[in-house]
Amino acid sequence: MPRDLAYDLLVFAQRNPKPCPVLDVTDPGVARSALFDGDLRTDLPAYRVYRDGELVDEVTDVRELWRPDLVAVLLGCSFTFEDALLTAGVPVRHLEVGRNVPMYRTSISCRPAGNLRGPLVVTMRPVPAAKVATAARVTARYPAVHGAPVHVGDPAAIGIHDLDAPDYGDPVPVHSGEVPVFWACGVTPQAAIQASRPPFALSHAPGYMAITDARDTNYLVPYEE
Amino acid sequence: MPRDLAYDLLVFAQRNPKPCPVLDVTDPGVARSALFDGDLRTDLPAYRVYRDGELVDEVTDVRELWRPDLVAVLLGCSFTFEDALLTAGVPVRHLEVGRNVPMYRTSISCRPAGNLRGPLVVTMRPVPAAKVATAARVTARYPAVHGAPVHVGDPAAIGIHDLDAPDYGDPVPVHSGEVPVFWACGVTPQAAIQASRPPFALSHAPGYMAITDARDTNYLVPYEE
Repeated sequence: MPRDLAYDLLVFAQRNPKPCPVLDVTDPGVARSALFDGDLRTDLPAYRVYRDGELVDEVTDVRELWRPDLVAVLLGCSFTFEDALLTAGVPVRHLEVGRNVPMYRTSISCRPAGNLRGPLVVTMRPVPAAKVATAARVTARYPAVHGAPVHVGDPAAIGIHDLDAPDYGDPVPVHSGEVPVFWACGVTPQAAIQASRPPFALSHAPGYMAITDARDTNYLVPYEE
Repeated sequence: MPRDLAYDLLVFAQRNPKPCPVLDVTDPGVARSALFDGDLRTDLPAYRVYRDGELVDEVTDVRELWRPDLVAVLLGCSFTFEDALLTAGVPVRHLEVGRNVPMYRTSISCRPAGNLRGPLVVTMRPVPAAKVATAARVTARYPAVHGAPVHVGDPAAIGIHDLDAPDYGDPVPVHSGEVPVFWACGVTPQAAIQASRPPFALSHAPGYMAITDARDTNYLVPYEE
């Protein structure tokens, strides 16, 4: 976002740390981060372009749209804790079926900041009932990549009326004996951009994040070396 | 700080999370925080006033200096984890002797952000050698109040040449068999203000923080309810 709008985004992130765990903020015009060995304008798999809050394009290169006043805010992603879930014996359905994770706008409002307001966006992973506690415990130790679930069970209670129609990503099957478990999602700022309509913003396309060389365990708390 | 300078402070905090764990950011002109049951202009024990980076006053009320463009950034304080240290059997010397904690500017540079740059400031607590590991383990679980130590042992290695002459707070005795243990300190932004010379800033006086009603355990990670 332009630096003059990014202040609101940083305060929004501080007030909504579960969906917006900030891992890095670049200087204006700088498309590189110490976290990421590449060019933030070309090396993400896909980008979305927002003008006045409208999604106007999805592209794989934003060099032509880049401006000297843009700062990049890098957020943690829940894909990071999926290896820890698998290690703990918790299945990850969207990996099993080779799809993007399903993401939903909820009826939970984020705390606004300046001109930025909008709903909490969540990812959903179906978890066998006996493993929900493990999923909560394991992911709680990764607050920088969204941490513990924000909701377990009834989707309607958080305003999700059809699990088969996610707002972003792909639907996945929920098997008998499984509970839908919802984690805060880094697409939340995009929902805030759509709701708040700032003049211009770029983002990753949901599910098409920057992949860094940082170890998952760097984000484990308390970090045990 | 004025909102137009606070952007740099928020990025500085993101880049230096150990000294600058942000717990809340108020809206411009708002001297109240959901974290703190009081008026941020009157209910801290003491304030410092900086103009062009110079400490020009220490007062107990900043209502006359308050401006509609000021935002307050609330940082966690290591005093919060001292109860956990005591519970774990780690003595806390400055409490024993009824003094403020000693704080020192170090030779460690913070990562700059915009126009803000400066040295890391640390608190020091002498810890019996056999309890240093416990002190590290206990405090690591409180990253929002500065977390694990940044340095253990030789003060000169981080540019501290006289433990008896702290830059802020009071000196405390270090007994035989004890090791000086250093934690990142929330006075770091004040050292950055002194080094970077923004036109105007208010802060708490070192050791004279806002005291909230939040439970220490709210800042424990992973949080076990």
